[in-house]
Amino acid sequence: MKKYFAEFTGTFILVFCGTGAVIVDETQNGSVTHVGIAVTWGLVVMAMIYTFGEKSGAHFNPAVSLAFTVQKTFPLKQLLPYVCSQFGGAISASFVLKFLFPDSQRLGATIPTGTPAQSWVMEVFLTLFLMLTVLGVSERGKEKGLLAGLAVGSVVLLEAMFAGPVSGASMNPARSLAPALASGYLNNVWIYLTAPIAGSVSAVFVHRLLK
Amino acid sequence: MKKYFAEFTGTFILVFCGTGAVIVDETQNGSVTHVGIAVTWGLVVMAMIYTFGEKSGAHFNPAVSLAFTVQKTFPLKQLLPYVCSQFGGAISASFVLKFLFPDSQRLGATIPTGTPAQSWVMEVFLTLFLMLTVLGVSERGKEKGLLAGLAVGSVVLLEAMFAGPVSGASMNPARSLAPALASGYLNNVWIYLTAPIAGSVSAVFVHRLLK
Amino acid sequence: MKKYFAEFTGTFILVFCGTGAVIVDETQNGSVTHVGIAVTWGLVVMAMIYTFGEKSGAHFNPAVSLAFTVQKTFPLKQLLPYVCSQFGGAISASFVLKFLFPDSQRLGATIPTGTPAQSWVMEVFLTLFLMLTVLGVSERGKEKGLLAGLAVGSVVLLEAMFAGPVSGASMNPARSLAPALASGYLNNVWIYLTAPIAGSVSAVFVHRLLK
Amino acid sequence: MKKYFAEFTGTFILVFCGTGAVIVDETQNGSVTHVGIAVTWGLVVMAMIYTFGEKSGAHFNPAVSLAFTVQKTFPLKQLLPYVCSQFGGAISASFVLKFLFPDSQRLGATIPTGTPAQSWVMEVFLTLFLMLTVLGVSERGKEKGLLAGLAVGSVVLLEAMFAGPVSGASMNPARSLAPALASGYLNNVWIYLTAPIAGSVSAVFVHRLLK
Repeated sequence: MKKYFAEFTGTFILVFCGTGAVIVDETQNGSVTHVGIAVTWGLVVMAMIYTFGEKSGAHFNPAVSLAFTVQKTFPLKQLLPYVCSQFGGAISASFVLKFLFPDSQRLGATIPTGTPAQSWVMEVFLTLFLMLTVLGVSERGKEKGLLAGLAVGSVVLLEAMFAGPVSGASMNPARSLAPALASGYLNNVWIYLTAPIAGSVSAVFVHRLLK
Repeated sequence: MKKYFAEFTGTFILVFCGTGAVIVDETQNGSVTHVGIAVTWGLVVMAMIYTFGEKSGAHFNPAVSLAFTVQKTFPLKQLLPYVCSQFGGAISASFVLKFLFPDSQRLGATIPTGTPAQSWVMEVFLTLFLMLTVLGVSERGKEKGLLAGLAVGSVVLLEAMFAGPVSGASMNPARSLAPALASGYLNNVWIYLTAPIAGSVSAVFVHRLLK
Repeated sequence: MKKYFAEFTGTFILVFCGTGAVIVDETQNGSVTHVGIAVTWGLVVMAMIYTFGEKSGAHFNPAVSLAFTVQKTFPLKQLLPYVCSQFGGAISASFVLKFLFPDSQRLGATIPTGTPAQSWVMEVFLTLFLMLTVLGVSERGKEKGLLAGLAVGSVVLLEAMFAGPVSGASMNPARSLAPALASGYLNNVWIYLTAPIAGSVSAVFVHRLLK
Repeated sequence: MKKYFAEFTGTFILVFCGTGAVIVDETQNGSVTHVGIAVTWGLVVMAMIYTFGEKSGAHFNPAVSLAFTVQKTFPLKQLLPYVCSQFGGAISASFVLKFLFPDSQRLGATIPTGTPAQSWVMEVFLTLFLMLTVLGVSERGKEKGLLAGLAVGSVVLLEAMFAGPVSGASMNPARSLAPALASGYLNNVWIYLTAPIAGSVSAVFVHRLLK
């Protein structure tokens, strides 16, 4: 139960701060800036890995939990409670933000700037790269705790930085579904539910070729 | 006595650099930028933790000292001298800045952009998240020294980045009271004296559920 | 074979994200910003070192592999397959980006802003500094894994930050040849094929004086 | 001799990249931005500490070497060769930059924006804080190598960020004398020759009170 509460809390904080940055930027005339939004996403992932890493493994992302299950390093019977905790935490955060920022239209929902196909392919690549780093730093034994947060947070930061203006740089079904539900911007949410999973599961196979 | 002097000096440097960034941005036509102000806050907290962590524990924040006391990991009889040292360091910094920058109106005082209620709730969440990370990295034994500064500084940086334009992202009664006293902007200081304490004490109870 | 696949994949990700940042900035009205492009380059190098460092040594750069060969710490017979993997990964990334962003003119190709001579000298210095850091952190024994990524990524970030507006801050023949081939901007590519090699090999000799 | 060559090379790279950022920003229409200049300074200090820390102690700053001598942790007879190496490296870098950027007026020289007295006091505080961190992380035994670069680089980054628009945030006589000599902007150089020394030596005494 404590693992699930850690996943709930970590994903809540992730979505509160990350989509909070998008919302504050939207409602306060661009004061956070795109660079500030990307920095917020990367650092909140890093800090949450250091805070909850030893408790739950710090997935905070259904695509990551599923990929670990496919890799057989995460027990199948824990997958559903993990994924439910992640969606629960993310959706709770989006509704708290809706209450705090009633003027926000999109609540940080991810929406493709170009074609849906372009964003779908981009999200597959982004999550593939992210998951390769997650898998690469998870096997380092004792350094794991020291490096995992820095490396994984950096990938989230840089991907939000360069790909945010194209696809929103979600890489995470929970992160995208929550503001879509709370704001009603559900049109493109299928991209962010499917592409991250395609990317993270592909990473497991690429990683296998590298071992 | 050396612990108290470390808390005084660390909080002095924190407020000098952090509110200094706000003041220089105000008096030099926005030259520091919002991103620069948030980076200054995060890095000064990180650097001060590495500088003074082994001497005093590097609280620099009455809400943090109080929460450790509630958690029973910090002795009650040291609480008052710690808090006095923190307020003393912060207030000294604000008066030095007033002398160096006589043209500054607000001296970096935190003021809500929207309603006081919105900023109060925001500050509770911000300090709750910050204190959860402080508690999470404090129990990691030997990695503590290596990770604490990076993780805690990152939380301060990201929270200043996304929530600064809403509530000022204080998370610290000493950081807010000092420029309020030196500038006379005392109207909203009650928010920043109460909300961080509500947040940091709540974190102790959330953390207990996670252990 | 796994080493070569690691070099291919790492260089693919490097060029996809790094030149991707330049392309998104070009096609989305400067939304990434110059600061964001430099941060993307630095962090992707850092993250790839942590992801692939133990597999292939994480060169991702023909000038780095050649310098290690000159220093006699990298076997000559692996040089050609490493360099081919690096060029293969980089060129693949540029063509995927061409497919994803058909409107981009330059695909992130490096082009001198001033005279070719100025950019040539700048690239020699940039790669000399980068390789000195690579050599400095490679000999630290066990800390290698912990520090190498942070130090080398920081050099790439800061050099992209200050020298990007002059020479493009390539420091890497594979990084420059790939978008030049995919976009047809081949005029100045000789600068980026020769100067990084001159810089990285010089670093081996400067490093020898320091030992 | 190798220590002196390490100090020469490290200070050369520091001034080349740091004042290079100011020069490129000046000659390329503000393209680096103030945030980018501060990031360049902080990261080059961090990277040079990781590159040369074990060779020379990575001072790169006459005020730091002098303070260590006052603290009796650095031998007096090495002070003059260290300081000469630092000035030599810095001045060489400024003349190489003058050759590469003939259009630059100031070559990155530090000049007070307000009164000389304001900048003098600011530089004393900046170097006092920097030296306190240097002294704090130097005594940590084995963590030294891992933390020193991150902590000291962060202080340089944040001080350049918030105080750069006031005094230039030099904290280093060599960093300021070199571009002043190469550009002829020598009027205010006395501030940057005296204040950093006053600050770094004060730090030794503050540090003594904390032990």
